[in-house]
Amino acid sequence: MAEQTRITLTTGQAGRLTEPPAPPCVIVIFGASGDLTKRLLVPALYNLACDQLLPRRFGVVGVALDELTTERFRDRLSGDIRQFSTRKQFDEAVWTDLIRRFHYLPGRFDDPVVFDELRELLARLDAEWQTGGNVLYYCATPPELFGLIAAELDRAGGVRSERGWRRIVVEKPFGHDLASAVELNRRLLRHWTEEQVYRMDHYLGKETVQNLLAFRFSNGIFEPLWNKSHVDHIQMTVAEAVGVEGRGRFYDRAGVLRDVVQNHMFQMLAYLCMEPPTSFRPDAIRNEKAKVLEAVRIMRPEDVARNTVRGQYGPGRKADGNEAAGYRQEHAVDPASRTETFAALRLFVDDWRWEGVPIYLRSGKALWRRGTEILIQFKKAPEVIFRELPGIPWLDSNQLVFHIQPDQGIELRFQAKTPGPSMQLQKVNMRFDYRQAFEAARATGYEVMLYNCMMGDQMLFSRSDLVETAWRIAQPILDVWAASPAGDFPNCPAGAWGPKAGFDLN
Amino acid sequence: MAEQTRITLTTGQAGRLTEPPAPPCVIVIFGASGDLTKRLLVPALYNLACDQLLPRRFGVVGVALDELTTERFRDRLSGDIRQFSTRKQFDEAVWTDLIRRFHYLPGRFDDPVVFDELRELLARLDAEWQTGGNVLYYCATPPELFGLIAAELDRAGGVRSERGWRRIVVEKPFGHDLASAVELNRRLLRHWTEEQVYRMDHYLGKETVQNLLAFRFSNGIFEPLWNKSHVDHIQMTVAEAVGVEGRGRFYDRAGVLRDVVQNHMFQMLAYLCMEPPTSFRPDAIRNEKAKVLEAVRIMRPEDVARNTVRGQYGPGRKADGNEAAGYRQEHAVDPASRTETFAALRLFVDDWRWEGVPIYLRSGKALWRRGTEILIQFKKAPEVIFRELPGIPWLDSNQLVFHIQPDQGIELRFQAKTPGPSMQLQKVNMRFDYRQAFEAARATGYEVMLYNCMMGDQMLFSRSDLVETAWRIAQPILDVWAASPAGDFPNCPAGAWGPKAGFDLN
Repeated sequence: MAEQTRITLTTGQAGRLTEPPAPPCVIVIFGASGDLTKRLLVPALYNLACDQLLPRRFGVVGVALDELTTERFRDRLSGDIRQFSTRKQFDEAVWTDLIRRFHYLPGRFDDPVVFDELRELLARLDAEWQTGGNVLYYCATPPELFGLIAAELDRAGGVRSERGWRRIVVEKPFGHDLASAVELNRRLLRHWTEEQVYRMDHYLGKETVQNLLAFRFSNGIFEPLWNKSHVDHIQMTVAEAVGVEGRGRFYDRAGVLRDVVQNHMFQMLAYLCMEPPTSFRPDAIRNEKAKVLEAVRIMRPEDVARNTVRGQYGPGRKADGNEAAGYRQEHAVDPASRTETFAALRLFVDDWRWEGVPIYLRSGKALWRRGTEILIQFKKAPEVIFRELPGIPWLDSNQLVFHIQPDQGIELRFQAKTPGPSMQLQKVNMRFDYRQAFEAARATGYEVMLYNCMMGDQMLFSRSDLVETAWRIAQPILDVWAASPAGDFPNCPAGAWGPKAGFDLN
Repeated sequence: MAEQTRITLTTGQAGRLTEPPAPPCVIVIFGASGDLTKRLLVPALYNLACDQLLPRRFGVVGVALDELTTERFRDRLSGDIRQFSTRKQFDEAVWTDLIRRFHYLPGRFDDPVVFDELRELLARLDAEWQTGGNVLYYCATPPELFGLIAAELDRAGGVRSERGWRRIVVEKPFGHDLASAVELNRRLLRHWTEEQVYRMDHYLGKETVQNLLAFRFSNGIFEPLWNKSHVDHIQMTVAEAVGVEGRGRFYDRAGVLRDVVQNHMFQMLAYLCMEPPTSFRPDAIRNEKAKVLEAVRIMRPEDVARNTVRGQYGPGRKADGNEAAGYRQEHAVDPASRTETFAALRLFVDDWRWEGVPIYLRSGKALWRRGTEILIQFKKAPEVIFRELPGIPWLDSNQLVFHIQPDQGIELRFQAKTPGPSMQLQKVNMRFDYRQAFEAARATGYEVMLYNCMMGDQMLFSRSDLVETAWRIAQPILDVWAASPAGDFPNCPAGAWGPKAGFDLN
């Protein structure tokens, strides 16, 4: 056995270098009494504290409408964390040290006094915790307030400082269409520089999404196959089994193209199709993402009819056999809604690497099962070799599948000889299971995003040009759909796979 | 989810087409009272019968020195089959139908009378079983007798016939060196045509070896990587944990280069490195094998010193801690033996596809563990992308490993992101396990060979030019080794990995 083959593969965390804790700072959460804070942000901060990735010189300020005291705010979060922590065991000591750093400031975001109070509180905390003037503002608010908060912070002197850094985090949606996205960027960048703005799409924090980059560029054998010479087509799927749940009001104004395709899926597409960067510096990656998104063919109105399919679910049955309501029956949805809950797109990336390779994107709610995956279908081997053998009418294509969620892993589908006296083939697969290989603590997905904000690494965050380019691809589709509302909605039952036409695109 | 991804992969035998039974024939086994017959040939025939791959018009004649009657021969085999059958359950009905077709003819192979008696017996069985004149002669004898049997059969009119086919099976070793191999071919082909001679290397009947061809040529994604642009080097290993056991007398005249490397390993190398054939017709495959073996660089004497390492095990310990005898202490081995029990070779295939890619072959007895595998090491991805990240001193190469035995499967070693807030990589792997995917009945490995002999398919059998080409590669090494006997034997303990120099070749 050669030396290489004797080495036991080390999996698990053993080989991992420990990251340093983030630099001293204060995090300000606007909208701190909302769901996002208690369900995701605070559990993520707690997880970071458990992993010793928070600085010791650190504080948190919550700002929201509710009339709370700091004491009451801490009590409430101390109750919530027991419900929303992702860890099996609760570490009381870590929590005690974390929660004593939390402060609360009640107020409206259109009230300048609040921002002045905030400035004073921050000055006090900076002195108390020695945070070097570093402040991270996190907008856990409806997106309509991003511009307002950005401006008010500037007015109150919260954007520029002689000591330390100031950064602002906004979460998707980044606009409702191209025009509003351009306007939002304009408003943000009037007060903040691009380097200060962290546009967050938590999808990009998922380990399996980040692994797309690692997989593509650390492995020598895939890059030579990653082009139009060897790839037949690509399929990306984001399927949700649930309906709109509590989000009817928001969702009915958005639809799946805005809610999932234009952001999550276009970002994954960029990771998948971009040229190799020369480094992992944030702008090295983001420049390549921008390039590939700019190469996506913009649909003309006649292309939209040919290359897109939309759907809306009616009443049906879930996979478990239970009845499921139709979209128009969901809470806070217009009973005559024309909003699409399913979309299928055929895109083309018109660059040297991908010209002519169809890329199918499909997403929908209330589908048969939940699953996000990316499938690369490679071209077949020449069949001529097998033509004389009995029992082999055709060869299959090789497929490489990235399972993003709920499965996390990579699967390679190929063909092997079935045992027996003559040459016969069968489809088989190899699998790499992410969770089996790495025993990582369960996380919210926000840990990596918050940590990178504090570290000043924008790699996982979107840039204004990327946001606008993604809207530029989506806009013609939105326009055609708006101009010709689908008359056949609902056109597929809940618990199915969306309208059949969505698969006929292939 | 796309249509493709919804299809459950069918594994197991379900999708396999049933092969037709072999055509009517009589099999003559020379040396029918020996080990090969009872341990492998008869269990293989029984397995073929269980799988309905034997013809109904069928008979077997055993020829050997022992003075047995047909009755006694059948009784003996009926006892042996219960010991050597590979099946879990014994099918009495199948065996009863099979054993009544067995006949025995005692005699020496240098006695012309025996071959005349055989001719008459075959005529009788042909009439009884309506086998259409088809006869398969199987030489389960020492190789020294191949030429004699081939000639006597010719003299007695057993080679050519106006009705049906006549074929002869000889098993490796095919000669002791180039000259004797050429002489053996000359003697066989004086009486038989190339199409009648089945040179058997049972290694080529192994499912995982046959799968090398299926894997390479039915999957679109590997062929583009299968060349000097993407492969860094190849390693083939045939490691045995046992010593020479009862084979000391034979082995001490052979050594590992003759016993394993020159036949099994060169044949696997041909499968691995050959150009794609245009079909699976036997000569389409064998022509490509011949081409690639002819492209192997023949070593000059000075190359032998640089590109080969030999070893002989001394006393040591097995993996289980038990003491193991040295080679010179083994039964029937010369106590001052200079025979190599370990060999490592660095070969080059000087064709367009492989020029400059080192191919390492290693084999030995009494090594640390048993294992036959082929490892393709691909070139690394450019490291430049990762150079600025902490904790990633280097990238690893991708490796594709074919596990031939005792593990049967394919493994792909690659790198993935470890979970955590920064980009760090770790080696992981995907595996395809042959036995897990296919629940085939255990077999001797001889079934596929015998079936293909009867079917007249020479694909898995060696051709005279292939045998001679393989010897042409081995001969200069044998010559140099013979001219300069190793003075340091034994140079490695039993239960280790052979001499260190074997790995320093890399």
